[in-house]
Amino acid sequence: MRGAVLHAPGDVRIEQLDDPTIVEPTDAVIRMSATCVCGSDLWPYRGINEVTEPTPIGHEYCGVVEEVGSEVTRVRPGQFVIGSFIASDNTCPHCQAGYQTQCRHRVPMTGCQAELLRVPLADGTLVATSDQPDPELLPSLLTLSDVMGTGWFAAVAAGVRPGMTVAVVGDGAVGLLGILSAAQMGAERIIAMIRHEPRQALAKEFGATDIVAERGDEGVARIKDLTDGVGADAVLECVGTDDAMHQAIRSTRAGGGVGFVGVPHGVAITGRDLFSTMVRLHGGPAPVRRFLPDLIDQTLRGEIEPGRVFDLTLPLDQVAEGYSAMDERRAIKAFLQP
Amino acid sequence: MRGAVLHAPGDVRIEQLDDPTIVEPTDAVIRMSATCVCGSDLWPYRGINEVTEPTPIGHEYCGVVEEVGSEVTRVRPGQFVIGSFIASDNTCPHCQAGYQTQCRHRVPMTGCQAELLRVPLADGTLVATSDQPDPELLPSLLTLSDVMGTGWFAAVAAGVRPGMTVAVVGDGAVGLLGILSAAQMGAERIIAMIRHEPRQALAKEFGATDIVAERGDEGVARIKDLTDGVGADAVLECVGTDDAMHQAIRSTRAGGGVGFVGVPHGVAITGRDLFSTMVRLHGGPAPVRRFLPDLIDQTLRGEIEPGRVFDLTLPLDQVAEGYSAMDERRAIKAFLQP
Repeated sequence: MRGAVLHAPGDVRIEQLDDPTIVEPTDAVIRMSATCVCGSDLWPYRGINEVTEPTPIGHEYCGVVEEVGSEVTRVRPGQFVIGSFIASDNTCPHCQAGYQTQCRHRVPMTGCQAELLRVPLADGTLVATSDQPDPELLPSLLTLSDVMGTGWFAAVAAGVRPGMTVAVVGDGAVGLLGILSAAQMGAERIIAMIRHEPRQALAKEFGATDIVAERGDEGVARIKDLTDGVGADAVLECVGTDDAMHQAIRSTRAGGGVGFVGVPHGVAITGRDLFSTMVRLHGGPAPVRRFLPDLIDQTLRGEIEPGRVFDLTLPLDQVAEGYSAMDERRAIKAFLQP
Repeated sequence: MRGAVLHAPGDVRIEQLDDPTIVEPTDAVIRMSATCVCGSDLWPYRGINEVTEPTPIGHEYCGVVEEVGSEVTRVRPGQFVIGSFIASDNTCPHCQAGYQTQCRHRVPMTGCQAELLRVPLADGTLVATSDQPDPELLPSLLTLSDVMGTGWFAAVAAGVRPGMTVAVVGDGAVGLLGILSAAQMGAERIIAMIRHEPRQALAKEFGATDIVAERGDEGVARIKDLTDGVGADAVLECVGTDDAMHQAIRSTRAGGGVGFVGVPHGVAITGRDLFSTMVRLHGGPAPVRRFLPDLIDQTLRGEIEPGRVFDLTLPLDQVAEGYSAMDERRAIKAFLQP
């Protein structure tokens, strides 16, 4: 099969790889219907995370089951399935509590930018739709594998509830889908902290009511201005830098929540930062498996269209252009057709 | 009047001071029925917080109203009242949200280890009982001014609910009352992380079901052992040091909460610490005003007896011995009779 391999910063190639096979009796092999490039793929692509050897890359996927291991009982060949970027058994205490990314047997997925994929713990990881979905829904369904589930979790972790004023830090696909999530959860006012004009437009279509282009102290001051000096009830931190985290904390009212989902790079918080602001902090790798059934339903019913974050569609063979376009911010997110 | 003044680390003296008077029309002056020494008073007493000039000290109080300013309508002379260690108007958006320690007009209290006290924002700050309380209840009622309300907030912030497994870090009065609070909220199992034997005994009387004497890595390992490898559902951090905070974070299950109320001294958290553990973090100076009406009722009904943390009773004139005994851990908490 063909699959993307990261060789070094800036060097992603499509190569001929061995077809994956059933290794464990709990595995499934799926034929990819669609895959994509994630903002977090850019960390190693940019050399911020070290690349020590050629590595199959990509962790967002949906497709049709080709084969299952002997112990798999909940999915069967021919079904369309979506899974999380971290495989989980969905039965351990962490999974049962809805924190499947902390599963005792978790397996981070990789090598999803490919034609075929081995999915460990298939029964726990994959959620099947009842029918083959309309191909037009593929982009939206694909987002549920990570980016939409992650935006949704940011809103859940921040404690978004109907009527709230919510601010979103980050104009990547996760931030934009955090806006969509907050709107879907009934937020009354959604302040998008976005500079880039084309992204402002999509933010508004997803439900943003206010745009703040300023960052740092000025950005915080604008949020305070917009909230009668109080701060937002909930803030979604969808970047992962120290600046973004502190902007989020300082934009939140006392007792309000910061939901953070950006993979932290250099984020340092003092006890005083939290003690003096009294914000609530919760985040981490989104347990998208928790949300998959509900988000699949919302997507199939047409209530949400998260696939709109894809503004570049490429054949898998042109994966390198997908990375390049996202790295240079020419594209929000690249959809790949195997 | 007589009042305690901190002159330098280790040097607290009772001095003759001017009687407080009504300064603002929203003030009240109360005659102290009881006061005490707080663990946080030990930070400046130990020189960890700088002492630059002689400062009246103490922030826990209850007493009888002597006089009120012209704009005070909710309390009147002769009433027995308890107030928070931070005065608040109880009407601003932060107060309305239950975060009175972040009140827009907040005034930190000091000089409470004295015979008389000026209380700013009396209508918002003070809660009166319907009758003069039984003198035997004074120690318990006094704790509601800070230490009990703080232990209670630690449990609220950690998200304690019936049936949970809760761990408490810290064997000071706040930690002990955090145990009492968790028990009162219906926690099924309460693990007290306490080395000191006499304090272990009181912890058990307050509702601790398990004692863990180990700290650091060993303490975390013991909590994991006791929870089938999962971690506690909620952890109360009642110390304020970096070690205590990290012990708390690492003892908590994914999605569980750490409620922290120890004034942070050198606490540093990385984004990775929180991202990888997925714990919820919430804390700060406890908005005890939020809890005063309910905790007064619980105390008057005899459901809780938080005053049991006082194991040393002294006349106000011997305040120096109170500090010394707490500093040397000869006493948990010193009750002072003006």
